[in-house]
Amino acid sequence: MKNRQIILVARPKGKLGPEHFQMVEGVAPDPKESEVLLRVRLISLDAANRAWMQSATYRSAVEAGAVMAGGAIAEVVMSRASDFKPGDLVFADTGWQDYAALPAKALIKLPHIEPITNLLSVYGIAGLTAYFGLLHIGRPRPDDTVVVSAAAGSVGSFVGQIGKIKGCRVVGVAGGTAKCHWLMNELGFDAAVDYKVGSVHRALKAAAPSGIDIYFDNVGGEILEACLPLMNTGGRIVCCGAVSAYDGTAPAAGPRGVPGLIVIKRLLMQGFIVMDYFNERETAVAELQRWVQTGQLKIKEDVIDGLESAPKALIGLLAGENRGKRMVRVSG
Amino acid sequence: MKNRQIILVARPKGKLGPEHFQMVEGVAPDPKESEVLLRVRLISLDAANRAWMQSATYRSAVEAGAVMAGGAIAEVVMSRASDFKPGDLVFADTGWQDYAALPAKALIKLPHIEPITNLLSVYGIAGLTAYFGLLHIGRPRPDDTVVVSAAAGSVGSFVGQIGKIKGCRVVGVAGGTAKCHWLMNELGFDAAVDYKVGSVHRALKAAAPSGIDIYFDNVGGEILEACLPLMNTGGRIVCCGAVSAYDGTAPAAGPRGVPGLIVIKRLLMQGFIVMDYFNERETAVAELQRWVQTGQLKIKEDVIDGLESAPKALIGLLAGENRGKRMVRVSG
Repeated sequence: MKNRQIILVARPKGKLGPEHFQMVEGVAPDPKESEVLLRVRLISLDAANRAWMQSATYRSAVEAGAVMAGGAIAEVVMSRASDFKPGDLVFADTGWQDYAALPAKALIKLPHIEPITNLLSVYGIAGLTAYFGLLHIGRPRPDDTVVVSAAAGSVGSFVGQIGKIKGCRVVGVAGGTAKCHWLMNELGFDAAVDYKVGSVHRALKAAAPSGIDIYFDNVGGEILEACLPLMNTGGRIVCCGAVSAYDGTAPAAGPRGVPGLIVIKRLLMQGFIVMDYFNERETAVAELQRWVQTGQLKIKEDVIDGLESAPKALIGLLAGENRGKRMVRVSG
Repeated sequence: MKNRQIILVARPKGKLGPEHFQMVEGVAPDPKESEVLLRVRLISLDAANRAWMQSATYRSAVEAGAVMAGGAIAEVVMSRASDFKPGDLVFADTGWQDYAALPAKALIKLPHIEPITNLLSVYGIAGLTAYFGLLHIGRPRPDDTVVVSAAAGSVGSFVGQIGKIKGCRVVGVAGGTAKCHWLMNELGFDAAVDYKVGSVHRALKAAAPSGIDIYFDNVGGEILEACLPLMNTGGRIVCCGAVSAYDGTAPAAGPRGVPGLIVIKRLLMQGFIVMDYFNERETAVAELQRWVQTGQLKIKEDVIDGLESAPKALIGLLAGENRGKRMVRVSG
């Protein structure tokens, strides 16, 4: 069986471009004892993919010359492990290719939920990241003001909607008028700030007149800096990502006001990744399903066809062109 | 009765100097109904005094032309409030003067502990800040590595010793060889890093070979930046102060790695001020007393005589010339 693979030919020093990727063709690997052969169906695209190219994070860095890493939904086509049989759906870091052979212990078996794209959006890393980060670290109370950046992205769009379910005033920060209108008119955000126009600090001050109780930070940098002085005493900053620092050269200096404002306002800043809450995922998925069924939580997915489209789709995601969860359909 | 007062004549734009203060003489004020007249005995000098000159913090900013603000131990000399009688010792923001008239509700009655200087050091804001910050936010476990900056200062010297009591490996960051030797030889720190010599990051890496579990941050800036990449996953940064940002002009950009490293390492950064734990102070003082009695906790005080010495003593404190708790003896 033919196996197409997208290789990261070089780790980018500046902005990521198509020249950093190359497609090659080989044959599907043979699974070893206790491994399974997987056919990749949907690859998750995430800003974190770019961070993996910089250095070791919560995983080792992606190396030049290797298949580009990435989480995906895949189907077992041949199994040499007792726990898996052909037809099983799993989540795994298959990388950007048609087929992967992986040890059984590297696979997470997925429940039967249709459409399966939902397993990468609301019931996958995006929805669970929003759920655990906002509820466990942000600890929203009714009437709290929640600000979320990259609000039209996969995680942000869920954060804002869950904030509304919890009775908060929700302000989204996004790029462009169209996204801002979509957040307010379709997703029920109370306000939206277009970071591409004028002073974000001034716009946030107007959109959050009682100050900010929870800032769910997907971007770091200047938007975090704009939020810091607006935080209320005892506020919580949920550190989920720092996209502003991923697609460039050396890390820039941090936001002004750290740590001075953290002291003065007794803020809590806490980082997390969704795997920290892996044991609680079933409860979370059940609650997310209830919200989807009652129409309180809307799902926005951005599915792009073809493995060959993955590089351009990731580059576009880093430029903010997507709404909701972006993924690449590799097969059936 | 003659009342000497030290006025902050102008809020400094850059470094604090003697030219920002002026002593004037007037007469002691008359207490109004429900007020008491206080004779100031010991004024606490703290790096935070300088932060108060910048802008509103957890208190309003100190204004040009007003008596310089400052916490002090004072004795009631005349009372028009039912709860207080002459001879009572209180803690209050009397400001830098011989006498102050304050409403009873602004006073904290002090227990009878001798020498009363201990009420400003180990049993006062310094000791309690170290106690609550390290134990409640840092949550030390045996064998954790604790790094504390401004380690030879009032708060830092207690943080390190309490860390040792809790079974941690303790590393102090301080300025100069003499302070570093004192931390190791007198206070029992495991290691000390002189931030005035060479790379702090490299020296910390050597002094904390298993990484840092708790960083008790009194200074912010470059030393926070040096600690961030050395933090272990799940580490805690206790944000107590940001002295590096107090005695200068506009706030500088924050440390590199915020918030990226907070995410990757799932760090917690949390700010606090000691008043947040006011309700638990009696329990804390009792435990501190036990540690003092068993010799596990040593008290270092730096008492300077004369109200007129206060400006120079604060300027010196900001330059790091003190060891332990600096205070000014105004009377008796």
